Amino acid sequence: MEAALKLAGPHRSVSSLSLREVAREAGIAPNSFYRQFRDMDELAVALIERAGESLRQIIGEARQRATSERSVVRGSVEAFMEQLRSDDRLLQILLREGMVGSDAFKKAVDRQLNFFEEELRLDLIRLAEANKTGLYEPALTAKAITRLVFAMGASAMDWPQDKYAELTEQVVLMVRMIITGTQTMASSGGMETLNPKR
Amino acid sequence: MEAALKLAGPHRSVSSLSLREVAREAGIAPNSFYRQFRDMDELAVALIERAGESLRQIIGEARQRATSERSVVRGSVEAFMEQLRSDDRLLQILLREGMVGSDAFKKAVDRQLNFFEEELRLDLIRLAEANKTGLYEPALTAKAITRLVFAMGASAMDWPQDKYAELTEQVVLMVRMIITGTQTMASSGGMETLNPKR
Repeated sequence: MEAALKLAGPHRSVSSLSLREVAREAGIAPNSFYRQFRDMDELAVALIERAGESLRQIIGEARQRATSERSVVRGSVEAFMEQLRSDDRLLQILLREGMVGSDAFKKAVDRQLNFFEEELRLDLIRLAEANKTGLYEPALTAKAITRLVFAMGASAMDWPQDKYAELTEQVVLMVRMIITGTQTMASSGGMETLNPKR
Repeated sequence: MEAALKLAGPHRSVSSLSLREVAREAGIAPNSFYRQFRDMDELAVALIERAGESLRQIIGEARQRATSERSVVRGSVEAFMEQLRSDDRLLQILLREGMVGSDAFKKAVDRQLNFFEEELRLDLIRLAEANKTGLYEPALTAKAITRLVFAMGASAMDWPQDKYAELTEQVVLMVRMIITGTQTMASSGGMETLNPKR
């Protein structure tokens, strides 16, 4: 797994690595590979799962430290961006491999995103109850936030370090737009209040 | 360009195609390739640009037909999803190649997304003026909408046809959350109204 992480990079998908190449990097015979994984797909799925677990733990800790709704958003986004900035290869794979690669990869990434969405959905419900705000379609709200944050992260992966502070502010505001939107829509029964004439 | 489109697919990035392979598919000698493009990167960038232009035209026409804010959102999202569902190889490349491939690819995709964001920003301003609603950070709002719609599209590329109607409804609601949020934030001076206690 370490060898595959080392070979994959910003311009190279795990799906383009060959078993032979990974075995060589790991200093093992190609045949020894099969003692651990059935094929390269199984290795890539294991990497994606490890990436998801690691990120969920980091963001979970940030959420635990946060108390108000405001700081839950900021704390989670900051933890995510910090991880991205630390050049975490695992996270890079999670952000990228959902787009290319085999169906097994895409499903593995989707499964990890669904875990995030489910945790966020429960958090949103808990906060809405604590703060007595409405919440329109919690599952959809959680999905919109998760997909947007991951998309912004994926597009920023190769950015210079000094851009991250600005990006973090942007993403925090975007997430607030969605949360403000879902709460406003809940209080108006799901109809936008945008266009009073119609 | 047609040959490269044919070879690339849901599991294969344009960045993994070789010049020789594309030339063979096109039925030309590898040397003839250079009469059109300097290298494979230049071919891929040309594909991304064509994809962006084609999609902007389709969505632009949908927007022109739409009159109210509500139908601008729905019309644009429906046009995008329809294009995705039609198995448009160009659009698939645009959605995917920003994640892998060379810096030239990623920059080309980013440039196309920026065009979308700029057009959407102007549309949002125009609609906010017409409907006398507020609009908090128009550029950021346009970016959030564009990135979220593209991310949802990218994750849905391989979905079965019968899932698209449900997906379209989800994305329309997500975009409405963002628009409702930016309007609510504008009317409260950029502060969320979410948490009256703080």
